[in-house]
Amino acid sequence: MAKELKELTKRADNYSQWYNDLVVKADLAEQSAVRGCMVIKPYGYAIWEKMQQQLDKMFKETGAQNAYFPLLIPKSFLSREAEHVEGFAKECAVVTHYRLRAKEDKSGVEVDPAAKLEEELIVRPTSETIIWNTYKNWIHSWRDLPLMCNQWCNVMRWEMRTRPFLRTSEFLWQEGHTAHATKEEAEQEAQKMLAVYAKFAEEWMAVPVLQGVKSETERFAGALDTYTIEAMMQDGKALQSGTSHFLGQNFAKAFDVTYLNKENKPEYVWATSWGVSTRLIGALIMTHSDDNGLVLPPKLAPIQVVIVPISKGDDLKHISERLQPVIDELRSKGISVKYDDSDNKRPGFKFADYELKGVPVRLVMGARDLENGTIEVMRRDTLEKETHSIDGIAQHVEQLLEDIQKNIFEKARSWRDSRVYECDNYEEFKERVKDGGFFLCHWDGTAETEAKIKEETQATIRCVPFAYEQTPGIDMVSGKPSKARVIIARSY
Amino acid sequence: MAKELKELTKRADNYSQWYNDLVVKADLAEQSAVRGCMVIKPYGYAIWEKMQQQLDKMFKETGAQNAYFPLLIPKSFLSREAEHVEGFAKECAVVTHYRLRAKEDKSGVEVDPAAKLEEELIVRPTSETIIWNTYKNWIHSWRDLPLMCNQWCNVMRWEMRTRPFLRTSEFLWQEGHTAHATKEEAEQEAQKMLAVYAKFAEEWMAVPVLQGVKSETERFAGALDTYTIEAMMQDGKALQSGTSHFLGQNFAKAFDVTYLNKENKPEYVWATSWGVSTRLIGALIMTHSDDNGLVLPPKLAPIQVVIVPISKGDDLKHISERLQPVIDELRSKGISVKYDDSDNKRPGFKFADYELKGVPVRLVMGARDLENGTIEVMRRDTLEKETHSIDGIAQHVEQLLEDIQKNIFEKARSWRDSRVYECDNYEEFKERVKDGGFFLCHWDGTAETEAKIKEETQATIRCVPFAYEQTPGIDMVSGKPSKARVIIARSY
Repeated sequence: MAKELKELTKRADNYSQWYNDLVVKADLAEQSAVRGCMVIKPYGYAIWEKMQQQLDKMFKETGAQNAYFPLLIPKSFLSREAEHVEGFAKECAVVTHYRLRAKEDKSGVEVDPAAKLEEELIVRPTSETIIWNTYKNWIHSWRDLPLMCNQWCNVMRWEMRTRPFLRTSEFLWQEGHTAHATKEEAEQEAQKMLAVYAKFAEEWMAVPVLQGVKSETERFAGALDTYTIEAMMQDGKALQSGTSHFLGQNFAKAFDVTYLNKENKPEYVWATSWGVSTRLIGALIMTHSDDNGLVLPPKLAPIQVVIVPISKGDDLKHISERLQPVIDELRSKGISVKYDDSDNKRPGFKFADYELKGVPVRLVMGARDLENGTIEVMRRDTLEKETHSIDGIAQHVEQLLEDIQKNIFEKARSWRDSRVYECDNYEEFKERVKDGGFFLCHWDGTAETEAKIKEETQATIRCVPFAYEQTPGIDMVSGKPSKARVIIARSY
Repeated sequence: MAKELKELTKRADNYSQWYNDLVVKADLAEQSAVRGCMVIKPYGYAIWEKMQQQLDKMFKETGAQNAYFPLLIPKSFLSREAEHVEGFAKECAVVTHYRLRAKEDKSGVEVDPAAKLEEELIVRPTSETIIWNTYKNWIHSWRDLPLMCNQWCNVMRWEMRTRPFLRTSEFLWQEGHTAHATKEEAEQEAQKMLAVYAKFAEEWMAVPVLQGVKSETERFAGALDTYTIEAMMQDGKALQSGTSHFLGQNFAKAFDVTYLNKENKPEYVWATSWGVSTRLIGALIMTHSDDNGLVLPPKLAPIQVVIVPISKGDDLKHISERLQPVIDELRSKGISVKYDDSDNKRPGFKFADYELKGVPVRLVMGARDLENGTIEVMRRDTLEKETHSIDGIAQHVEQLLEDIQKNIFEKARSWRDSRVYECDNYEEFKERVKDGGFFLCHWDGTAETEAKIKEETQATIRCVPFAYEQTPGIDMVSGKPSKARVIIARSY
């Protein structure tokens, strides 16, 4: 077995180490020389490109358009919205100078004190402020609404503890920012975009998610409501995978953005923002992968099918000739195929490497297969092998890719469902939450109770789930009345 | 005529103002609140997306893969390559702190002096240093070569005088960084990518370019050779539109990147880098557009065909019904169509607006056309109108889009060609260069002569052109012998 695989930590031994190992060994990303910032390697970036492509299509179908706003935000902009600055000022990269100069002793360069900025600039942690400052000039009348822009970009939050994809100082994301004439329309937009995220997570990433609304404590800084999709990782922890915010008129008021309504009277605009990031790659890895490596959903796999011929010399030539029409047919179906006839690696190494990289389907053909008109098919999700006639193999693979996509979603969903518990006893909760899972518990709605749970169990309120029939009850911690159950879990 | 159009400055009156006006009025971009940084508006960004899509495809066809490297670069990295730091230290945004704090009087936020970075970080002006520091870990043996990565990202250079798209402090670009086993291979790569840029400029942007190599003075900081494509704008000035650099072993040595060759001996790696930026949008605008607004090449136009019905009530309904199959047929050919039946703008306003925005083909249908089975066709490049039978209109439009693409390229090329002059007399040169144009002049190869020309005429050596049969001669300034003619021009 290949060296890399031997070294991959087992999930049961150390789940966290398994994840860190896998990210590096599957060539997805690595730490950079800059604290908390990662390098996204070509294989990892190819997954992000596939995600972007699909999400971008879905956003445009809702009427959103892409645009680009500046990386640097004047310090004073952050302060305009009180909660926003509170939420982001503590973890931002600050540009104070615009020039370096040679040191006197020529040993390198230093900041040129003469090139100090009058006002410091912040590397955007999110762009509400600079965008609403721009929207002020774009919005005059009800005819200019709704205004729906999205940008794909990098953002920076000075995180103290970072992990590749899950939490990094710099990350890539998209941020949608919309402006509407009415409160209702803005609320609908925020929920519509959450539904887009949920659809993408489930149908493309094959990651089941629960949709819900955040508690006040967990809201985005400056939002009136934050909607979230929460996925469950294989250690039972929650991963917030996408959020959509109803911002009310907070940013419109902070940046004085009004429009003339149909009665020609000025009104403040209503806002939303919504985003997903490279964190989704972390969700993808942790939902499906196993001790052999990545398991990628076919719809997002950079390589969907790998074909390995096992032979040499003339036999190899004949096998290649027999396989060429198969490769052509697969590609004509829009399936991405890698034909690996490289002779500097043994088949066993190749097999282990493509398993590690999560390629959904592997086809292998040797001299005997050629004779028999057969090909060996392995699916990465179950590691099951079968021998298939080479006739009709392309159609079989096409169907298999669909099956794998469905299967890994169903597997993740039934696994998740078996770990969602109703719980009414705090002592029991404290014990069981250590093993992970989503706990549906009554909550009295106070920040005090929320803080107590967090302090005593490291678990947080993930959301009030939408798809749950609520009945009133009693808060398990405070004993006070509760209107609804919330999902409580430990999280990333 | 629409208000916007009346206000567009004429090229003959003030070419520079015409450009600035057009960028804003055609909704491409605008100044942001941050010095020297622009907001790219949805219509401008849609052009960039089309450019990205095609370039990305062409890069991948050469074997390059996309990846992502950190935005921030440790200050010390810049210093590792002597010329590189010299070239970029003078114009960079420096991050010195990682936190803000509330001011004591609660009047806002200020930099928290306790959160000073040990080593300052530079917002990338280009990524050679951080990438070669990463490549060090990726390259061990000749089997790891060639390594060809590209990234699409934002970069920052603290420019003092900025103009939208042409020169901004922050801009979007792509930067390819490749590593090779031999000098020859790296040189070939640099030239191959220049050819990719030239092909894209001519076949997609319809912008004719001259390919050549830069003088030492004009080289990228850290390169042994810089190849360039130079386009001529309508004022006769040159616009450097893309560059590709042969970096020799400079960065490999600075970051100690070696590989074991087939004889198992360590050797330094050979490097290239190559990039184009949102500046291309500036080139596009200035090459084709006219006093009525933008003229976009069909292959990059976000809207290729606009259809405007002129009618009301039942007539409008019948016209719409008649047009629907035309719209469907055009879209099935992959043509992007906008059907504008909005009733809050007059036809005259719409016509002017789509001219301003450079939509290549406009179709108009009124009640009489419906009766006659005809439709009015206008092409944006020549403003010629014709009446065409509605039967076969989709095919006609498809052909027309191809014609327009060819026509604007031919027009730009013959215009450019008529302004390329051989010149052997410095006095004559000084006089004529004021009116623009590319001057093919003998040059003695010294930086002194180059500097003198620049000082006395504001013109610079753009490149030694590839496609020019060279014979030795005499430098027009110094009277010294010259091996070859160079292109000298004023430039953006």
